[in-house]
Amino acid sequence: MKKYFSKLAAAQTPYIPGEQPKIDNLIKLNSNENPYPPSHHVIEAIQNELNDALRLYPDAKTTKLNEAIARKNGVLPENVFSGNGSDEVLSMAFMAFFDSDRPVKMYNISYSFYDVYAKLYNIVVDYVNLKEDFTAPVEQLYNSKGGVLIANPNAPTGIELTQDELEAIAINNKDRVVIFDEAYVNFGGTTAVPLTKKYDNVLIIRTMSKANSLAGIRVGYAIGSVGLISALNTIKNSINSFTLDRLALAGATAAIEDNEYYEKINQQIADTREYFTGKLVEMGFTVLPSKANFVFAKLNGIDGQRILDHLKTYNILVRYFNREEIKDYVRISIGTKEDMDACLDALKQLV
Amino acid sequence: MKKYFSKLAAAQTPYIPGEQPKIDNLIKLNSNENPYPPSHHVIEAIQNELNDALRLYPDAKTTKLNEAIARKNGVLPENVFSGNGSDEVLSMAFMAFFDSDRPVKMYNISYSFYDVYAKLYNIVVDYVNLKEDFTAPVEQLYNSKGGVLIANPNAPTGIELTQDELEAIAINNKDRVVIFDEAYVNFGGTTAVPLTKKYDNVLIIRTMSKANSLAGIRVGYAIGSVGLISALNTIKNSINSFTLDRLALAGATAAIEDNEYYEKINQQIADTREYFTGKLVEMGFTVLPSKANFVFAKLNGIDGQRILDHLKTYNILVRYFNREEIKDYVRISIGTKEDMDACLDALKQLV
Repeated sequence: MKKYFSKLAAAQTPYIPGEQPKIDNLIKLNSNENPYPPSHHVIEAIQNELNDALRLYPDAKTTKLNEAIARKNGVLPENVFSGNGSDEVLSMAFMAFFDSDRPVKMYNISYSFYDVYAKLYNIVVDYVNLKEDFTAPVEQLYNSKGGVLIANPNAPTGIELTQDELEAIAINNKDRVVIFDEAYVNFGGTTAVPLTKKYDNVLIIRTMSKANSLAGIRVGYAIGSVGLISALNTIKNSINSFTLDRLALAGATAAIEDNEYYEKINQQIADTREYFTGKLVEMGFTVLPSKANFVFAKLNGIDGQRILDHLKTYNILVRYFNREEIKDYVRISIGTKEDMDACLDALKQLV
Repeated sequence: MKKYFSKLAAAQTPYIPGEQPKIDNLIKLNSNENPYPPSHHVIEAIQNELNDALRLYPDAKTTKLNEAIARKNGVLPENVFSGNGSDEVLSMAFMAFFDSDRPVKMYNISYSFYDVYAKLYNIVVDYVNLKEDFTAPVEQLYNSKGGVLIANPNAPTGIELTQDELEAIAINNKDRVVIFDEAYVNFGGTTAVPLTKKYDNVLIIRTMSKANSLAGIRVGYAIGSVGLISALNTIKNSINSFTLDRLALAGATAAIEDNEYYEKINQQIADTREYFTGKLVEMGFTVLPSKANFVFAKLNGIDGQRILDHLKTYNILVRYFNREEIKDYVRISIGTKEDMDACLDALKQLV
């Protein structure tokens, strides 16, 4: 089977995304998708682009989207890079900023795609072990040889560092690129975008899949100094000049411009998370303090896989990670209040 | 500026795509886009997907699209890989099949993005020089150390190899992957898909940008043995689980299924190419025998750049490649008959 694989391909262990089964009445709490629909402006904007011009290439420079992101975040368009989901942006960031001979600091427990990229691009990782309570020993992220990549809030824990801690990481990694992956920052977390204006080594990466209810159209972006954005463009333009199509560009731009709608639904998700967390704690669960649109929770004495299997019998999907340090936990995405009540009812049967 | 660039990024020279200027009444013959609109079934299919489900991730396995491609091409779905434009598929193919220590054979004059990929992935190229008439010395493509990648029809010449020649290349590169890039095969060329059933080392790569009038939605695909497709999936799933969004998947599937419409418009383009070629020859141009949706033409004594500049004053864009071997030529995409008549009128002023 692997006869024609390059050495690189033969050595890879790909990432496995959350299941996307086609089952009716499924309560899908396994992929951190937003339970609320995209803004109706998104649908209208795509509608307006749905015409014969699809025969023509899109804008390779994603000008209008970058301008909208810049306006919303108080930066300039030249501080913005857009790509086909934050995974693609992360992949390009590995190529743009990290070198094989300089180890990059990452948490030992985080988004597992980071490890896949490190292997794919032959980047050595200098893992920083989280403490027993899954908080980060911040000073251990200082003085990296090759850069830093952390998710903030972290996945799958939901735990966030403070702005002072993030700034200290930026300062103490002078001359190295420090990447904060803010996939989950819009549910009550605090963005580090202001640090990108003070420190030219700080790059923020975001996805529109979660906070903007657009997992289905694949858009992510990065914010940072002109030098960092230039490196990302160099890599992108050496791979695929047009990673974002005409419809995705139109929809994403409209989403960025309808901040009001998204703030409302994401606040609702944060409220539901607090409600759900309270109920879980009442039932005896340990729940990590999440700022994300998911909670990471365990019930003493019950393996995470068993919780997942139990919920599956109620047509409720959650995510479990088969790793020793977190094998008691499940990650439960925050859906609507009705979704979470159904989940609570099912969990009561287990307790 | 390059302070934070990785060594890799610092060494790259990105590809530069054809211009996409925003000028009214432009006759755009510089990017080989299809002058005819996509099938109305494409628009309808996307319309049907334009709903709240955009909040959910797309099908990472691109099942329906792969099934449609398989049906149309007489192969099985497991022989198909789909990606974000054929450029992305090509980029992943370099990672999936080629190794740094085994030189890959390519034409010295071909799609210039191949050279960018070779540099990005540190693949040594064993260039095969085209003959003076831009045909290929086929036997020099035999016995590669690391594989073969050629465009057929070739770009920017439009010249095609015969099926016998392609088969000989496949046979004489046993144990090495042989890639035929068929971006331009649908305008009168002959596909080598049947060879993928006889030889498990042959991979076909196609784009939907040209033949399917869908440059704006970014879809490309590969057809080959299960082993080759498996290697591509390994790389893709180590970079981005979801490269194709819900709308692109729906539109591309509908396009593949409306073969009748596309055969009609692409035959029209082939007819227009023959008409245009005849007129150019009458005017004294040398025109290479093209099977693609463009012609590569020169007028003795006039530099290609001058032809391009002249046409630009008539709001007609064509493509010029600043390389010694082809500096007399311009590549002119085939538009509608009206586009080509306007181009002929403008060229008459030069002659």
